Amino acid sequence: MNYEFRRKKIIKKLKRKGIDSFLTREQVNVHYLCPSFKGESVILVTKDITFLLVDSRYTQQAKFEIADEKGIELVEMRKPFLKSLLKLFAKTGVKNTAFEVEHTTYDFFETLKKNCRGIKLEPTKGWVENLRIIKDDEEVKNIRRACNIIDRAMTTLIKNIKWGKMSELDLANELEYGLKKEGSEQLPFYPIIASGSRTSFPHAHSTNELLREGELVIIDCGASCQGYGSDLTRTIGKNIMDAKKKETYNLVLKVQETAIKNVKPGVKTSDLCKLVREMFWEKDVAQFFIHGLGHGVGLNIHEAPSLSSHGSVNLKEGMVITIEPGIYIPNKYGVRIEDTVLVTSKGYEVLTGLYKNCWQASS
Amino acid sequence: MNYEFRRKKIIKKLKRKGIDSFLTREQVNVHYLCPSFKGESVILVTKDITFLLVDSRYTQQAKFEIADEKGIELVEMRKPFLKSLLKLFAKTGVKNTAFEVEHTTYDFFETLKKNCRGIKLEPTKGWVENLRIIKDDEEVKNIRRACNIIDRAMTTLIKNIKWGKMSELDLANELEYGLKKEGSEQLPFYPIIASGSRTSFPHAHSTNELLREGELVIIDCGASCQGYGSDLTRTIGKNIMDAKKKETYNLVLKVQETAIKNVKPGVKTSDLCKLVREMFWEKDVAQFFIHGLGHGVGLNIHEAPSLSSHGSVNLKEGMVITIEPGIYIPNKYGVRIEDTVLVTSKGYEVLTGLYKNCWQASS
Repeated sequence: MNYEFRRKKIIKKLKRKGIDSFLTREQVNVHYLCPSFKGESVILVTKDITFLLVDSRYTQQAKFEIADEKGIELVEMRKPFLKSLLKLFAKTGVKNTAFEVEHTTYDFFETLKKNCRGIKLEPTKGWVENLRIIKDDEEVKNIRRACNIIDRAMTTLIKNIKWGKMSELDLANELEYGLKKEGSEQLPFYPIIASGSRTSFPHAHSTNELLREGELVIIDCGASCQGYGSDLTRTIGKNIMDAKKKETYNLVLKVQETAIKNVKPGVKTSDLCKLVREMFWEKDVAQFFIHGLGHGVGLNIHEAPSLSSHGSVNLKEGMVITIEPGIYIPNKYGVRIEDTVLVTSKGYEVLTGLYKNCWQASS
Repeated sequence: MNYEFRRKKIIKKLKRKGIDSFLTREQVNVHYLCPSFKGESVILVTKDITFLLVDSRYTQQAKFEIADEKGIELVEMRKPFLKSLLKLFAKTGVKNTAFEVEHTTYDFFETLKKNCRGIKLEPTKGWVENLRIIKDDEEVKNIRRACNIIDRAMTTLIKNIKWGKMSELDLANELEYGLKKEGSEQLPFYPIIASGSRTSFPHAHSTNELLREGELVIIDCGASCQGYGSDLTRTIGKNIMDAKKKETYNLVLKVQETAIKNVKPGVKTSDLCKLVREMFWEKDVAQFFIHGLGHGVGLNIHEAPSLSSHGSVNLKEGMVITIEPGIYIPNKYGVRIEDTVLVTSKGYEVLTGLYKNCWQASS
């Protein structure tokens, strides 16, 4: 990863704003700006050098991980951590520091304000997140790998479902195991598996309920590669006889595929959402589509851009998003179909490739 | 769980402080105060009634989960969430609200301050955490179950290690799978498995490195039951010939067992830490003990009390803590041994029961 390039972007921002330094404790942002290890570390980017502050549990490991990275100096934090930070401020002579309002607690801010006399604290929002929104080739490669992991694990999983014998929790455990076997790092989220009427909960917790023929099962899962996630949902079933369920499934599938076909640079996310809502509206089920259409995927499984009716961004080449319409009939059943999609220069590429034919999947 | 009893304690606090309501978005605290489901929910405790605010994805599920709970009213949040909160403030007529400084971002606080005109925001710290520190019988039962899960999963795991053939990551995956098979919910943390010289990193990430005879392996893992965690570390090995490694192992074991024997109500955590440090000091290895002695375990895997040289609390009946001394020789090897321990009226009970003989474990 080109960490130095990213830090230079932050430094450019500092220079433009006339601020001396940028402070973050948000681990994903730390990880984006330097080769790191998801400890409880802190980064202080100054115009000349970036300081990585870690506590004693991580010193050895951090030394090893930043060995090849220029422009980073390791600082072992002593408790209380604040003291180390104050020392660093004194050493570098910074007069002010940008902090992230979304990742700084009221408590930490007040403590800083009280103790960092003479250091002005400048509230900022989204400096790193706005860089993260467009993925470079290496990031896309990692997300693609994470998508392939899901495809392989899900293919095996679906083949081996024992209807009537496995519970939602059993399936979740097998899936998690399979995702790791296929090469996933720590999963970005625990698989969401719901069956029967619990499919009407968009974010159900898996239970001991057995998977039954004739009932729908929603499987929503992610994998991770070099910290980058992937996200996929399939709704499957065996011997589904209920015409309503089939009808809903086919509608959600059609809507999802239509939305994906409309992905290209310049398209407004709000227009994609509108398109989907109108398609559901026509079939009189819009009130059962109770969440956003999708979200960005990267170092966080949910990141910018958000595809919802609140706010809109123009899609750009290099964004990676999910498209995941769903219909949830309260206390009856639900259907969601989701893929991870790359915005390309000419349109889109679906990175998750698993088949979508619910009934094929279940045979 | 006696959620109502817990809410009454918060209400008592509100009355004593002359504050109308208590607001939290911290999911673990929400979960402590009402039967909930780990969504992105918000709770507003007022003197008469508690409001649970959830977004539309969770409404159905939340209805179901709080069905038997008196004194809770469900509110579906519309985006932007703030609007729902302001409406609720208006409806209840609260004039001020306590918020948690450790769990409120600068951003959210500023937004509240700007929008909640006429509502005074009262900073608070640890109201719920201080209740959580002493576990009731049902909580202990859940932690005990989570400890038993680890014992069973680890026993099976250690038996089945294929030295020279399995990697750290393979072992982590098998362990995770085994913990779930034994009944764990979502793990409180991903198993930390380090082998060879990487055992000198207290919080290593598992790698593709194979587990080798003659090298130590640290396995640190947790399980979860009804949201309550358990935590255990063992250091194992096969055909360890190096006398130094054995010596360190036996020292850490002796120190850990001595520390546990000193656990009882009234003991200062700082005295326990001092005892351990002195024992290491005598053997001239105190500089290699680079983290705290332990931490509380409950709904969070790390919670109060912290057993470190910074600050001290008196142990009380009903606390559940870990005792986990470790020695880390840079670039060479490390040893850590950890158990989850209940403070009882007369002393202690070790809740994790797995054997500790490193060499037995490895045969």
